Amino acid sequence: MIQPLATKAEPAGDPSAMIGSCPLPLSDYKEIVLAHGSGGKLSQQLMQRVVLPQFRNAALDALHDGAILSLNGTRAAFSTDSFVVSPIFFPGGDIGKLAIHGTVNDLSMCGARPLYLSVGFILEEGLPMDDFRRIVQSMREAAAAAGVMLVTGDTKVVDRGKADKIFINTSGIGLIPEGVDIHPGRAMLGDKIIVSGSIAVHGIAIMSVREGLQFETEIASDSAPLNGLVEAMLAASKEIHVLRDPTRGGVSSALSEIAQSARIGMLLDESKIPIHEEVKGACEILGLDPLYVANEGKLLAIVPPAAADAVLAAMRAHPLGADAAIIGEITANNPGFVIMKTRVGGTRVVDMLSGEQLPRIC
Amino acid sequence: MIQPLATKAEPAGDPSAMIGSCPLPLSDYKEIVLAHGSGGKLSQQLMQRVVLPQFRNAALDALHDGAILSLNGTRAAFSTDSFVVSPIFFPGGDIGKLAIHGTVNDLSMCGARPLYLSVGFILEEGLPMDDFRRIVQSMREAAAAAGVMLVTGDTKVVDRGKADKIFINTSGIGLIPEGVDIHPGRAMLGDKIIVSGSIAVHGIAIMSVREGLQFETEIASDSAPLNGLVEAMLAASKEIHVLRDPTRGGVSSALSEIAQSARIGMLLDESKIPIHEEVKGACEILGLDPLYVANEGKLLAIVPPAAADAVLAAMRAHPLGADAAIIGEITANNPGFVIMKTRVGGTRVVDMLSGEQLPRIC
Repeated sequence: MIQPLATKAEPAGDPSAMIGSCPLPLSDYKEIVLAHGSGGKLSQQLMQRVVLPQFRNAALDALHDGAILSLNGTRAAFSTDSFVVSPIFFPGGDIGKLAIHGTVNDLSMCGARPLYLSVGFILEEGLPMDDFRRIVQSMREAAAAAGVMLVTGDTKVVDRGKADKIFINTSGIGLIPEGVDIHPGRAMLGDKIIVSGSIAVHGIAIMSVREGLQFETEIASDSAPLNGLVEAMLAASKEIHVLRDPTRGGVSSALSEIAQSARIGMLLDESKIPIHEEVKGACEILGLDPLYVANEGKLLAIVPPAAADAVLAAMRAHPLGADAAIIGEITANNPGFVIMKTRVGGTRVVDMLSGEQLPRIC
Repeated sequence: MIQPLATKAEPAGDPSAMIGSCPLPLSDYKEIVLAHGSGGKLSQQLMQRVVLPQFRNAALDALHDGAILSLNGTRAAFSTDSFVVSPIFFPGGDIGKLAIHGTVNDLSMCGARPLYLSVGFILEEGLPMDDFRRIVQSMREAAAAAGVMLVTGDTKVVDRGKADKIFINTSGIGLIPEGVDIHPGRAMLGDKIIVSGSIAVHGIAIMSVREGLQFETEIASDSAPLNGLVEAMLAASKEIHVLRDPTRGGVSSALSEIAQSARIGMLLDESKIPIHEEVKGACEILGLDPLYVANEGKLLAIVPPAAADAVLAAMRAHPLGADAAIIGEITANNPGFVIMKTRVGGTRVVDMLSGEQLPRIC
C-alpha cells in the first residue's frame, strides 16, 4: 500500500470568518503582493483558496511542515522549501546554510530523521563565481554538520535582472521512527507549549544588515539544524504531539496556525517567552513585534503535561535548547485563538501576521 | 540499511581534456554566464568543478536524472528540477505543466514509478492572480494525467524586478520496481539507441513564440509525462539499460554525457532520426542544429539488441512512442564520443552543447 497516511488534522475552514481583523479578501487581490509570501494570513489564504482546492489530499490538507507518506510500509517525511533571502550573506550565515537548515528542520518537525536532500539552484547571470563557490561550500559544511546527504540537484541560469543573485530550493526525505506521531492535529487540552530558546534572532540579524543598524554585540542569525535537538527530545519522550519551527511569521503565526487547524485554544505567558535584550531593543527601534519575527534555529513543541518536564530537561541539556522554556498551554477557551497574558497583566489575542513585516527573510 | 545504492557509473574525468573544442575553462569565468545553465559543457563543468567536489557520494556521482536510494530496503528515486521558462505560457503548455512533466520524467528515467511531488513557487510581486490560478490549474491537470500526487509545497514572493513572473521547483519521489536497474553506466557494446519520436519540438515551440515566427501549422511543445511510456517499455522487457530525456542541450548533449560517463562510443545514423519537416525548417531559419534543441516529451533508450525489437514495438504501440526509431548503437570505437553518419555519407562528432543556444527553455 502506497498512499499518504491520513492524519487527524482537518482544514480549519476559512480563517477570515473567525478573525475580525482580516486583510482584504484574496479575491480582491488582482496581483501577487509581497504579503502573499509573509507566512501570515495572506500566505494562508493564497494556499487555502488557490492551491489547496486544486490538490486535495490528506497529506497536503494536513498543512504540516512536510508530507507524511508511506513507502512500501516505511513512514517517510517529504518536504520542500525555496530560499530567496536578501542579502545572501549575513551575520551568522548565508543563503546556502539556511537552505540546508530549512529543509532539515521541516523534516525534523514531522518527527523524521532527515537523510537525503536535493538542491535546485536558480542563478542570475553575473553572480560572482566566488560567491557561488562560497555558498556551495557553506552548504557542504551545513549538510555534514546535520548528517544529511545531498544526493541530486539542478541548476538553472536566468538573464541579468530576472532574478536576484541566487535562489535555492532544497527538498528532503526523512524516515519517521517507530512510535513517533507528530502533527498539528494532535495538540490536546492541557498540553504544554515549549519554545527551545530566545526568539526573533534570525529576523533581526537580517534586518540589522538591511537597515545598517549597529549594536554593542553583533546580532547573528540563529540558523541551525534542529534534528539533533529533536532526537534528544524524542529520546526523553515519544509523546511529543506537535513540533513547529516558527520561521516566516514568527511564533505568533506558527501557534495561530496550529490553534486554527487543531481547533484548540492557547494561553501564552509573555513573561516566560525568552528574548535577548539586544533583540528586544532592536525590535523597539524597528517597530517590530518579536512574536512575528522569523526564527531559523528555534522550535515550538506541544507536549502532554506528564512528559513536559522530561522533554524540557532534555532540551536544556542540548546546546540548541539551553534557554528552553514552557511558555503556555492548550486551553478549552477560545478554540482557534492564541491568547497572551501580557507582562503588564492584561490579555491580548495573538493573531497571524497580517500583511508583510520582513520580506525575503528566508 | 539506509544508503544510496552504488552504481557502476564513474565520473568520466575532465571532459575538456578529451574534447579539443572546449570553451574557456571554468576557472576563467569570474561570473555565472547563461551557458552555465545550458545543459551543455559549461553546465557540466560547473557541476564537476564547483558542486560535485563538495558533495561526493555514490548517488550524486552517478550523474543520473535523479538519485537512486534505499529506504529501509525499498528502492526509491528522488529528483529535483527548477523551471524558469520564458514565456510562461506557450503553444502546447505552460510553466506549470512543464514543472510536473519535468520531474515525472526525471523519475521515469531512473526506471521509477513516480508517486509524490513537491512544489516550490517563487513569485514576483505583481504576477497577475489569474495567471497564477491558471498555472496551478494546469499543474493539477498534468499531475492527474500523470497519476502523481502533489503532497507538499512552499511559496515565496520577491519584490518586483527581482524575479521574472514565476519560477517553479518540483521535486519527486518514485519507487523502482523489482528487477529494474537503469542508469547511464549500464550502456554496453552492441546496445541499440532508440528515440521515442520526433526531436526538437519543445525548443522550437518556445523559440517561435519568442521570435514571432509563424508556420502553416502551429508548432506546439511536445511536453508530456513519459511514465506511461516507460511502463509499457518495461512490460516488454526489464532489460532496458539506460533511459534519458533529452531536455536542455538536446539529443546530442544527453548522448554525449552518457558516452562520457559509461566510457563507450556511439554511432548514430542521421537519416534514422525522426524530425518533423516544419521543425527542420524552423531550425534552418533560426540557425539551430535540431540535435541540440530541447525536448520535453521524448526519451532516449539504450537497450540490448535481443530486447530492442520488443521494446521498440511496445513504444510504437503507445501514443507517445508512435514515431519511435532505432537511431544508432553502442560501439567499441571512440569511447567517450558520439559519432554520426550524416545524410550525405560523411561522419562527424556530435559533441555536448558548447555555449548557450536557447536560454530559459525549461
